Amino acid sequence: MKQARAPRCRYISAASKLTSDTFRSPNQNKFSERTHACDEVTVEHIGARVTLCGWLLYKRMQFALLRDGFGVTQVVLNESLYRVIENAPTESILRVEGIVVRRPDGQAREDLPTGQVEVVADEITVLNLCKDVPFQPREYQKKTEAVRLKYRYIDLRHEEMQRNLRLRSKMTNTFRRHLIENYGFCEVETPTLFRRTPGGAKEFPVACHSHPHEFYSLTQSPQQFKQLLMIGSIDRYFQIARCYRDEGARPDRQPEFTQVDIEMSFVTMENLMNLLEELMRAVWPSSLQEFPRISYHESMELYGTDKPDLRYDLFIEDARNLLNAVAENLPEGHCIKALRLPGGVELVKSRHLKDWRKAAKQLGINGVSEVIKRGDGSVKSPIASLIDNDQFLENSMTIIAWGPQKAVLRALGKVRSDFAQLLRLSIISSFNPDFKFAWITDFPLFSSDENGKLESEHHPFTAPHDDYVEFLDSDPLRVKSQHFDLILNGWEIGGGSIRIHSSALQRKILADVLGQDCSELEHLLKALDSGAPPHGGFAFGLDRLIAILCEAPSIRDVIAFPKSHDGRDSMANAPVALTQEDLEYFHLGGLKSPEGRDPSGHSSSGNLAS
Amino acid sequence: MKQARAPRCRYISAASKLTSDTFRSPNQNKFSERTHACDEVTVEHIGARVTLCGWLLYKRMQFALLRDGFGVTQVVLNESLYRVIENAPTESILRVEGIVVRRPDGQAREDLPTGQVEVVADEITVLNLCKDVPFQPREYQKKTEAVRLKYRYIDLRHEEMQRNLRLRSKMTNTFRRHLIENYGFCEVETPTLFRRTPGGAKEFPVACHSHPHEFYSLTQSPQQFKQLLMIGSIDRYFQIARCYRDEGARPDRQPEFTQVDIEMSFVTMENLMNLLEELMRAVWPSSLQEFPRISYHESMELYGTDKPDLRYDLFIEDARNLLNAVAENLPEGHCIKALRLPGGVELVKSRHLKDWRKAAKQLGINGVSEVIKRGDGSVKSPIASLIDNDQFLENSMTIIAWGPQKAVLRALGKVRSDFAQLLRLSIISSFNPDFKFAWITDFPLFSSDENGKLESEHHPFTAPHDDYVEFLDSDPLRVKSQHFDLILNGWEIGGGSIRIHSSALQRKILADVLGQDCSELEHLLKALDSGAPPHGGFAFGLDRLIAILCEAPSIRDVIAFPKSHDGRDSMANAPVALTQEDLEYFHLGGLKSPEGRDPSGHSSSGNLAS
Repeated sequence: MKQARAPRCRYISAASKLTSDTFRSPNQNKFSERTHACDEVTVEHIGARVTLCGWLLYKRMQFALLRDGFGVTQVVLNESLYRVIENAPTESILRVEGIVVRRPDGQAREDLPTGQVEVVADEITVLNLCKDVPFQPREYQKKTEAVRLKYRYIDLRHEEMQRNLRLRSKMTNTFRRHLIENYGFCEVETPTLFRRTPGGAKEFPVACHSHPHEFYSLTQSPQQFKQLLMIGSIDRYFQIARCYRDEGARPDRQPEFTQVDIEMSFVTMENLMNLLEELMRAVWPSSLQEFPRISYHESMELYGTDKPDLRYDLFIEDARNLLNAVAENLPEGHCIKALRLPGGVELVKSRHLKDWRKAAKQLGINGVSEVIKRGDGSVKSPIASLIDNDQFLENSMTIIAWGPQKAVLRALGKVRSDFAQLLRLSIISSFNPDFKFAWITDFPLFSSDENGKLESEHHPFTAPHDDYVEFLDSDPLRVKSQHFDLILNGWEIGGGSIRIHSSALQRKILADVLGQDCSELEHLLKALDSGAPPHGGFAFGLDRLIAILCEAPSIRDVIAFPKSHDGRDSMANAPVALTQEDLEYFHLGGLKSPEGRDPSGHSSSGNLAS
Repeated sequence: MKQARAPRCRYISAASKLTSDTFRSPNQNKFSERTHACDEVTVEHIGARVTLCGWLLYKRMQFALLRDGFGVTQVVLNESLYRVIENAPTESILRVEGIVVRRPDGQAREDLPTGQVEVVADEITVLNLCKDVPFQPREYQKKTEAVRLKYRYIDLRHEEMQRNLRLRSKMTNTFRRHLIENYGFCEVETPTLFRRTPGGAKEFPVACHSHPHEFYSLTQSPQQFKQLLMIGSIDRYFQIARCYRDEGARPDRQPEFTQVDIEMSFVTMENLMNLLEELMRAVWPSSLQEFPRISYHESMELYGTDKPDLRYDLFIEDARNLLNAVAENLPEGHCIKALRLPGGVELVKSRHLKDWRKAAKQLGINGVSEVIKRGDGSVKSPIASLIDNDQFLENSMTIIAWGPQKAVLRALGKVRSDFAQLLRLSIISSFNPDFKFAWITDFPLFSSDENGKLESEHHPFTAPHDDYVEFLDSDPLRVKSQHFDLILNGWEIGGGSIRIHSSALQRKILADVLGQDCSELEHLLKALDSGAPPHGGFAFGLDRLIAILCEAPSIRDVIAFPKSHDGRDSMANAPVALTQEDLEYFHLGGLKSPEGRDPSGHSSSGNLAS
């Protein structure tokens, strides 16, 4: 089931509780030509002379609307002043000087901060004519995202993009202030030009002029540097860090993104989770409930996922008693589970059921069935003959799945998440935005791929739980880690862990358990031997967090200049083929630029030299 | 003359006025195993039980010194506790629990915040043994920079690096708070993966998997994006932005650096300079005098440079009256200038004179001479026969230069700057650190290269002074710009300007005056036509500013993990050759990785495919 896009107009929730005062600063008009922003002129200013600068939103004989990034003010013009702007198209830039007066009776607008007043202009200047706009800012919803990204500077003028970006700036500043001023963190900027990490296929390579045929790699995260900072006595580090990942065309990812990156010495998992929870509460615009802690195992059992959306009281149940015939012959490692869908009779369509069966099949299970009990007590279900009708409520829908435990849980996890979205869309007008954070803990340290090869469930620097170290050799899949995730409304917002500070243990896990070559990490292993304090840290994705806060349908709505789905900059066109001259300069001359073509054009063709 | 490196031990000036309270936060020990940092334990805590975590700095029967990033605490141990750490080398990590007591009479140390007390330990734990350090943190001065960078995590433990990084974090936070909370700026993160700009040979190319043979370029600055943000109604933007420049081996530059980047709509040059000055005063740890404004012309005339060090009252003077014989036959455009060097008789050695003559010759002038008037009134000078002795003071040194005006001024500018450094080093013990900011204004908009081709003095988006627009066609070199530089103690800290907001003027300057192809900037020109407000902005280098504040000899001393002189990461070794597999993945397969070599080794050899 595709993620439906919520209509944009309703997507500010916590943000909608913010008044325009949230974004106001005492000296926001100092050092500029204006005396007030276009949302600031109110009854308090009646009789005052003001200077406003902004975009012409609308004009008609005698009056005009002036818009800036904050709001709109109505301007009254006499005939000779009107002539000044008569030929100025909307979106031209004006400076208006005049006196604030109360609007005539019956013309006040309660929905605007400036709705009680208007400015009677005595001077008006066209600062720049708008000669050409591809669309009016208020029409952005009619445009495809491709057009919006190509002309992002128009899209940004809309009040929602303004609010998203300003909210992001405010919130990031609040994070910083708390970390630095309250908790004694030191913000350190770490390099992004670094060397490839083992297995770092997703790291963009960077060529340079001075070192032919050698490449920097853009860092995926400051992981190594933050551990080195702990070793270097910066005991509380954070950074709002730019990170890079060459993931190609993934719909809601960006090749560069922002991570709030934290590391601390002399801490436990408890310490880290408590700090993060206190921090989130301090910066969040609305009040938050306590963050529950849910073990990975429990989360999988109850929700069929390790990032459940806790806004919905939908729980996976054991269903052996619903399906006795199957239960009797259940093989080892198999289970029967059910998820009851209140309101499902109305909301769930046959295409959803088809979708869920297909998804389950991909997970390797055939046994997925719905049970619908009608108001008259009759049951509609492919497995009607196998079930006990009395176990179901009238007017109810239940999805039952059986087969290998993991696949059953994941299949019902998908049903749960899709149904939650149906619920959300069904109550769209009355939907009360809510933010349910939770911690997921007790993850396994390793997982095994299809060939039985062990992999780190998170990354190889994660410390095992002390109680499980003894099983590293004998039963590594049993080892639990000191990793924890922070989830919010069904998204994994971030993750953290206690790191390994013993070089012996780190070497053992890299070499013996994971079978990796340690040579590319010798600098880190040597650093652990030089007096590395016990340490741990956390990172969370700022783009996603702000997008959830703004209820934006995509992280692109909280990034000023995002790349499009396929990683391109649609405005200026990047990436782009380089000229042969540039290729030679950076020692990439072995690659011929596409012949006979304008090097500024973009094409994925191009010949290898040989 | 090479820039002498000031001894590092004396380089904290404004920073030295900061007490350790500057870096203290109310909850800096909350959510951690320690109760106090190692600088916090004072007479206030006598009788209290504390837990400290830190590095073993020194041990001897009965006592040990424990160090963390903040300070040092003395710990008293009984014999059995001593045995716990007996075999722990220095730089091992300990946790110490105990009671704070007053030091015995005569053992107090006034120079340490914790010098009145010690902690009588009742529990001590070795958290991690230090098995191997290449050097002790306090010995870093004996080490070459190459060693220090390779083992940066040890270097960072020294109190100066701690102070530099913590000061940088504090100061950056203060900048942010003022901009956001006081002046209404919105911090916006702009892309670093962008397309090459015309003539952008210094922009690192970035390959990717999804778009074969196309490259992003890492941005040198957010210039285009910040202008687009103004067009997009974010009327006050700033960003503490990572910027990239592939400059190869330049001694005090870094391939990635940090810029405080500011842009505002509806402002004048005056507005921008006033804001910046107010901002600098607000964040600077010591009080600052008013920033004088000096025109480019005046600065060249008085100081022979556009970034004079105003801590020294040394002024270039007209010297026609000193050298009448030459003055009589002075060609058009030539001049005679002099710089008096108080104390020069003692400080200036013959190697300096030789150096200055050589530099002058490179600038194209032969006429540079010293005039030394001894205490007995006699004069020693190569041009003794040409000068009038009475014009010179006894025990004085004067440098006289004549020839083409520009070259003469630049030659004396070098003399001035070198002599200032001699003065600084000569009074090293009594040198009172001072910070002299100034604005340089009225720059020419264009300069011409050796072939007479016009170039932008700064960048092509800089607006001309209104009064000079009329000369754009007829006499472009006469046109002054709305650009201004901020200088501090002889360094250019940053620069700003009013930008061009008219597409017609921008196109005229790009195409008609500079003869550039506009096609790669069409997106910006189109944006200017969509209602671009008048706007301007500023950017300053954070690394340099903090280095001057800390009186650090190099910007590398205020960067946690700098690259070395040649742009390499010495710790992990980057850049590095990629494996053939990685090259193929990123469509760089045309470049063969050096054959038969370990791909993790670094070498500048490597074969082009063909």
